[in-house]
Amino acid sequence: MATGTLRAFVCSFSIIFLLKLNVFSCQQFSISFQQPSDCGVESYFDISSLSCVKCGPNQVSSKSGLACECQTGFRLLVSNGASITCQQCPEANQGVTQDGYGCIRCSGSLGENGKCQCPKGSVLVERDGNGNPLNDAQCEACNATEPAFSAPDTTGNRCVRCEDSFINSSLSCVCGASNVQAGGMCFSHPNALPTSVASNVIFSQLTLSIPSAWFSSFLYSSAAACLSFSNRTACQSLGNMCVMNMHSSSTINNDACGLYNTIYRATAAQGSSQDISYWRTNLPWLYYGDQLGLASRILQNEPLPVGFSFKGTQKNTNIELRAAVYSVRGEFLRWESVGGGNLQLCPDTPTRQQSAFTFGTAYKQSCVLSVSELLNGYPEPLFYDVFLVVQKRLIAVPLLNINQQFNGQFTNEGSNMNNWYLTRRLMLVDTLSGRENSLSSSPKIIRVASNIKIGFQLVPNTQKGQVYPPLMTVTYSDILVNVPTTQTVTVSFSLEYTMDQEEARVKTDIALGVLGGVAVVHSLLKTASWKRRIASPLIDLQTIMKFLVFYAGDLANVFFIITVGTGLYWLIFFKAQLFVSVLLPLPAQEERFVVYVACAFALKTVQFLHKLFVQLSVDIFFIDWERPRGKASKHVEGSGEAKSQASPVSIWRTYFVANEWNEIQTIRKINPTFQVIAVLFFLEVVGFSNLALRDPSSNLRRSAEAYTPPYSLILRYGVASAMWLCIGLIQMIFFTVFHERFVEDKIRQFVDLCSISNISVLLLSHRCFGYYIHGRSVHGHADTNMDEMNTNLKREAENLCGQRGLLPNSDTQTFQISITNRLRAQYDRIIEPISRRSGPSRLVDASANPCEQSTKAYHTMNRFLGSVIDHAHREMDYIVKDKLLFERLIGMEFIEPLDKSIFYNDESHSFADVLFYGNEAVLLIFDTLFFCVVDLGSQNFILAAVLTYLQQLVFRLIRNGMGRRNLASKTLVDKRFLI
Amino acid sequence: MATGTLRAFVCSFSIIFLLKLNVFSCQQFSISFQQPSDCGVESYFDISSLSCVKCGPNQVSSKSGLACECQTGFRLLVSNGASITCQQCPEANQGVTQDGYGCIRCSGSLGENGKCQCPKGSVLVERDGNGNPLNDAQCEACNATEPAFSAPDTTGNRCVRCEDSFINSSLSCVCGASNVQAGGMCFSHPNALPTSVASNVIFSQLTLSIPSAWFSSFLYSSAAACLSFSNRTACQSLGNMCVMNMHSSSTINNDACGLYNTIYRATAAQGSSQDISYWRTNLPWLYYGDQLGLASRILQNEPLPVGFSFKGTQKNTNIELRAAVYSVRGEFLRWESVGGGNLQLCPDTPTRQQSAFTFGTAYKQSCVLSVSELLNGYPEPLFYDVFLVVQKRLIAVPLLNINQQFNGQFTNEGSNMNNWYLTRRLMLVDTLSGRENSLSSSPKIIRVASNIKIGFQLVPNTQKGQVYPPLMTVTYSDILVNVPTTQTVTVSFSLEYTMDQEEARVKTDIALGVLGGVAVVHSLLKTASWKRRIASPLIDLQTIMKFLVFYAGDLANVFFIITVGTGLYWLIFFKAQLFVSVLLPLPAQEERFVVYVACAFALKTVQFLHKLFVQLSVDIFFIDWERPRGKASKHVEGSGEAKSQASPVSIWRTYFVANEWNEIQTIRKINPTFQVIAVLFFLEVVGFSNLALRDPSSNLRRSAEAYTPPYSLILRYGVASAMWLCIGLIQMIFFTVFHERFVEDKIRQFVDLCSISNISVLLLSHRCFGYYIHGRSVHGHADTNMDEMNTNLKREAENLCGQRGLLPNSDTQTFQISITNRLRAQYDRIIEPISRRSGPSRLVDASANPCEQSTKAYHTMNRFLGSVIDHAHREMDYIVKDKLLFERLIGMEFIEPLDKSIFYNDESHSFADVLFYGNEAVLLIFDTLFFCVVDLGSQNFILAAVLTYLQQLVFRLIRNGMGRRNLASKTLVDKRFLI
Repeated sequence: MATGTLRAFVCSFSIIFLLKLNVFSCQQFSISFQQPSDCGVESYFDISSLSCVKCGPNQVSSKSGLACECQTGFRLLVSNGASITCQQCPEANQGVTQDGYGCIRCSGSLGENGKCQCPKGSVLVERDGNGNPLNDAQCEACNATEPAFSAPDTTGNRCVRCEDSFINSSLSCVCGASNVQAGGMCFSHPNALPTSVASNVIFSQLTLSIPSAWFSSFLYSSAAACLSFSNRTACQSLGNMCVMNMHSSSTINNDACGLYNTIYRATAAQGSSQDISYWRTNLPWLYYGDQLGLASRILQNEPLPVGFSFKGTQKNTNIELRAAVYSVRGEFLRWESVGGGNLQLCPDTPTRQQSAFTFGTAYKQSCVLSVSELLNGYPEPLFYDVFLVVQKRLIAVPLLNINQQFNGQFTNEGSNMNNWYLTRRLMLVDTLSGRENSLSSSPKIIRVASNIKIGFQLVPNTQKGQVYPPLMTVTYSDILVNVPTTQTVTVSFSLEYTMDQEEARVKTDIALGVLGGVAVVHSLLKTASWKRRIASPLIDLQTIMKFLVFYAGDLANVFFIITVGTGLYWLIFFKAQLFVSVLLPLPAQEERFVVYVACAFALKTVQFLHKLFVQLSVDIFFIDWERPRGKASKHVEGSGEAKSQASPVSIWRTYFVANEWNEIQTIRKINPTFQVIAVLFFLEVVGFSNLALRDPSSNLRRSAEAYTPPYSLILRYGVASAMWLCIGLIQMIFFTVFHERFVEDKIRQFVDLCSISNISVLLLSHRCFGYYIHGRSVHGHADTNMDEMNTNLKREAENLCGQRGLLPNSDTQTFQISITNRLRAQYDRIIEPISRRSGPSRLVDASANPCEQSTKAYHTMNRFLGSVIDHAHREMDYIVKDKLLFERLIGMEFIEPLDKSIFYNDESHSFADVLFYGNEAVLLIFDTLFFCVVDLGSQNFILAAVLTYLQQLVFRLIRNGMGRRNLASKTLVDKRFLI
Repeated sequence: MATGTLRAFVCSFSIIFLLKLNVFSCQQFSISFQQPSDCGVESYFDISSLSCVKCGPNQVSSKSGLACECQTGFRLLVSNGASITCQQCPEANQGVTQDGYGCIRCSGSLGENGKCQCPKGSVLVERDGNGNPLNDAQCEACNATEPAFSAPDTTGNRCVRCEDSFINSSLSCVCGASNVQAGGMCFSHPNALPTSVASNVIFSQLTLSIPSAWFSSFLYSSAAACLSFSNRTACQSLGNMCVMNMHSSSTINNDACGLYNTIYRATAAQGSSQDISYWRTNLPWLYYGDQLGLASRILQNEPLPVGFSFKGTQKNTNIELRAAVYSVRGEFLRWESVGGGNLQLCPDTPTRQQSAFTFGTAYKQSCVLSVSELLNGYPEPLFYDVFLVVQKRLIAVPLLNINQQFNGQFTNEGSNMNNWYLTRRLMLVDTLSGRENSLSSSPKIIRVASNIKIGFQLVPNTQKGQVYPPLMTVTYSDILVNVPTTQTVTVSFSLEYTMDQEEARVKTDIALGVLGGVAVVHSLLKTASWKRRIASPLIDLQTIMKFLVFYAGDLANVFFIITVGTGLYWLIFFKAQLFVSVLLPLPAQEERFVVYVACAFALKTVQFLHKLFVQLSVDIFFIDWERPRGKASKHVEGSGEAKSQASPVSIWRTYFVANEWNEIQTIRKINPTFQVIAVLFFLEVVGFSNLALRDPSSNLRRSAEAYTPPYSLILRYGVASAMWLCIGLIQMIFFTVFHERFVEDKIRQFVDLCSISNISVLLLSHRCFGYYIHGRSVHGHADTNMDEMNTNLKREAENLCGQRGLLPNSDTQTFQISITNRLRAQYDRIIEPISRRSGPSRLVDASANPCEQSTKAYHTMNRFLGSVIDHAHREMDYIVKDKLLFERLIGMEFIEPLDKSIFYNDESHSFADVLFYGNEAVLLIFDTLFFCVVDLGSQNFILAAVLTYLQQLVFRLIRNGMGRRNLASKTLVDKRFLI
């Protein structure tokens, strides 16, 4: 073995050298690839060395190529396992014996293989009865007549009894002239059958009809044997041919189905099998009758005597199908449990394939198969009679063959059940009927069951999980075989579960109608309220637009309620049911739902944008109650305000309050980013998204090996929206109950800040309606140093000073206000120079400094509003009152502020309505719909989460940026202080 | 057919009725399930009606159960396909002919089946040569001697030439007494072979040795035929038995491998096949030699003459294996392309199975198979000689059989290649050798190739994708069959690609060493800087702790750089390589890497928490430059400050500044939530996570049907960290280049605010080091009304006033300050009453109002610091200078502030170092590591994103909340104003 090592080294060197030349030459332990067919006639394939080895002299390789045998005319002299020696036979005995070891003289003729041949009906005899070789090979004719009835066997070596049909029809082993010999049998022609049969197979998809070798060989004989001898395999074989012809029948009675029907009618007297009237004794059951409407009676009259149940002790989700399998020759092969791969052409793991037969699991498996694989894997078709096993009995599963023609019409293609003709017996791949010339030639056309669907329909209003008998729908594809290696065919296998969705649809419609009506009323009320608040009695285009916007919002809510309700309904009732009482809508039936969701989202967007726009144009003013300190005023007594000597009131408190107002613009009752992340966590990490799969399982974890059914859009929406609303609600409860009480309440902080800084806030969301936060300091002054501030705070904490409320001895600081037209007009008059700043420049007042003007307007407004609050203007006085409960409920004031403005006590800080804070419902629903719409479009929760986050970010930036600009322009606080 | 409808109705009624009774009785189109074996002896299974039908008189069902046949002693009278008639044979001719149609007298004996029987060596003759039936059946003895050499054929009907070995060894068809008849052959015993063979098979896992029917039938005959006649199938069959014995050899020479080796030695003269010295002519190649170290020479000496390439025009990732398949009888069956299911016992889709043979794709498929399925699917084992196809040549793939024993030792179990004995020929499932009594009995033990692994090793430093010959490792499991239906066995099939990782390890170690050293120096520097800044010359425990903390941070960076570098290295070099030059580390080799990541994270956490702690305890004071307005002071001239009449300076500017400082505490240079969401988006939605799969593909989208290789932890880390750093960098660039310049720069805004509000900020991050923001208003007063503020802002915009800087005519407002010990001592003395507030209460000063005290301290501090800045204290004076470049670089001041404090100009706002803003690098790396560590633990990017978001949220809340508390206690601004 040292040589091996040495060689290895030499080899390494040469490899290194040769690799540079990019030439391959030497590799230890490598051989060249040879196979038996490569060896040619004079070599054989040595199975030890896996190479071709030359045969000895006078030898050729055997048919398998794995050994040598003697040339024609040579006999085997010696054979010792590994090698043989051959010897030429002498001229006299030039025939070689069948075993190859002897030479013999042929009495008959010498065949091409160098062995003796005998004429038809004779057998070749080379040895006598005791095995002693004869000198001359003899041909003995077999005696075909009674009592011998003999004919040569398949090897041609012995005479044996011939086929029964010969003896039966001609009392001899020769089929007489009056009889017909077909398919290896002999018949006296039965009268019922046509004399000639149509052995063409029609491939209607390709509009091609080709003569089939199989049909021409066996169609007549099968029909004749079936009718004449009641030969069961012949009957089955005839039935198979009818199936290969797609069950198509017409007035022509000499095709396969025509012959079947002829025999069916002719054998009516024999009665039926198994008490089923369509199943003739001895014949296969191929057709349910051809009455109109029979299909719907079979499929929808009578439920299966079993209830399916998803859970619990009586759990029953197992669909057990069993098929009787027949070969194309009509032999019964076996009973097969359907499952695994027998009806599923697509290869997959057994676990996944088996999950097709779990009731309620929408199963669809689809793949592309190569035609050459089909040709290799299915040389002959198998035929399946499928039954459903129920309580140890077998219930026939009807088959709807989409390709079936009845008098030239594809009656089964439409959805009208009354036109259907149900059949039985299914085949998967037929590579046989398309063989034109001989049974061993390759087929011109093959036919594949490209789409098999088993559909279950739930009995309406069942509480016990009852279903009607399943229907198997099959679609065959015809493929003209040109280049089998590159041609492919797409096949699929699916299970579908349906129930009558009409009731759900009607209920949804009713809900939509009722809620839609309520929405109209609600929107009208809102419009009326809005009209009152802008103090305009006219119904103009703007009013109609407003109404439409309000209606959009209300209608969005209606759609949202209905879609979430629908989603939750299916989620809960489908996933949690014990006995099956509902089944999910099919993907095609989900379209309406998607449209509803789209409507909800579109309308909600309109409402949201409108809210945003309104919020960005709200009127706001900070009323500073601080007056210059007494000392300073003493000094400038009587000299009026124009004197610059007056001690100035610091603007910084206003800056502070404005800054805070700017900051609370986009705070919400929930943390929106946390919301997105939490929803994503529960859906994708905890696995709630698995609840949206179309199967009865409510497991959150799925094995990677298990079959994953497709998602139901409705369930996805249901899970996602429920998750959003739940987490949103939990967050709201957390923030209102815990966080705002114990950690931080930004809204209350703002109100407190107003009070401490001696600044009131006037908000006008409508022309004559708005909010007022009373911030007059109870200490008279707030513009002071730290000592005094601390003392003030302490005094207030110890209840040593008055209460903060607008009215004496009240705590109410926040109000909704309905102001009179006169007050608003005055307000507008004062604010005019400010708002003009942003308007087009005019020639008038061109000299006036706009900045000075607006500062002046600020001071005027400050004084004016202060005096109004102080009841200093009799003609613009106001009263304070409580709002009625009903007023609160419908969001509208009953009393019009004609003479006096009205301040409604408002403990609930409803001024937050002009902030994001007060519109949490709209925002949450908008976010939810945004998330769900993205998900419905992309089926990807992560993408939906990312886009929702971005949407929130963008709208927050818009609201903040434009809100800041509005705040700066309305309150005259420089934008640079709103940071 | 109307009756059918009627019955359907009747049936519906009865169903409804019967279901209530829970009894099943009637179902249209249902049949009961019967199969041939259910029908018993007297019935047959009618394949048309799928039910049992009684046979006629004197008939019994045939063996298949599908038809009837005549009882023993009865002949077939009439047969017309569907039914037969039988007739008893008369007493005289009581034998039934072979074809069953006739009665005959037996000259020999009558068999149990009612047919005639002949003695051994004789044939039964019932018809003459022409097929005429004889009256008496005759038994003719076959002539065994020359020249007839005949014996009965398998049917016993004819005499034919007998087996060659009989004729060769005894010149007769009877094996003489001096010869041995075994396995249907006749031998003269060869001398080289032992006289008796060991037909036990040893199942070493179960420590069981059972007598095998297969071995006792064929072991001797195979060996003898192989040696005597060079019978090739016999030699292969012998080799197969050696394989079934796990290639185990020892000094015993009468077991299968012993016999193989004996023949191997005895036939040395015949030479070898295909120039391979271990492959003897006519014998199968089972062993590579038994020299020490041969395995490593074979596996690592010489690369394959082919380069694998992942991409480009020369893409070559196809591993083409081809196997010569032998039956257990030694017949060569075919060449098979390995792929699809032939070596993979686990069923799966062809696409997935085929992806095993893509070079570079780590493939592992594993499943649990039922023993009963194996028994049905593999009645006999197949044997595979596997070759790798390279440039049309076949290279033998060596096999490492883990179960192989050499003199009783499991030499192949260890990882030391020098002890290995390589072999060839593989089998998958052996249910044959464990059959004890007969070949048709069920096996007691089966053996399954439960783990097949094909390993490729890359040639070190190759640039051409060269690999050494692959090694196939197989582990067999022995299973004692008790209850086949419930017993299972786990099998797996995997491909593994390795390269020598030593070089990478060494390089990592070097980098770690070098960078670790740099880290020590850097940490020492930082510690020195820290010592200087706290003005403490002592090296105490605290110093060492500080050093360790600094070192932790630096070391964390080192680990981070190394791990990210490693991750990116593998990501780029593995995924982007054209010709294969690197292969990923195996999961077991990733452990070191994971430890490094864990170190980086732990150390970074220490650094981060330390930073947080330091930031939360920083000293800060707002110096208010505002002095009471002139007028007011005139009035109280000479009466001192105690007078309450003095016009107070409003504290609101301080509140505003403090509030803003509070708000910028946690702003960062990036948006951290956006960071998380963006990373998640790119990883999971765009599909970058697919880059971390252990295969050469760099596609971001994978088909759901394709095989998904396992993830590489290193690649996951590489992708995730690269994504974090990239997006972080992009964000930072966006924020610094675009956002801060054109939208909002919070830090600059704060500095501006200081200036406008006439407030300076003093920050002391260390005892004698800190930052100073000079905010003295250029207008002298800021505490004024809106008119003046607007005028001031306008004047400044129009450059009508002085510059804001501390020094005249300079703009520099921000400084790093090194203060003298004396100044600090004074600071501490003033602040003492405030800081005591939070300390334990003491008896001294119990009467003093703590609040008043602290307000007093505030005023004192304000005045003191103001005067220091104004150079009013000669003994605490300061100078302003620029920092040296080198000082900036190493972050340490060279000059100790002994006499005078030093103010270093600092245009880069480095006071942000005490905020999150100035520590973006630490935060980003911490977030990255947090994300990656969660992902390495859970392999779930979504979970990592969720947890990272929560971590950011929690630390932001902590930093904000505690920072606010610190701010309130240090600056005396009431917490209620920090909102």
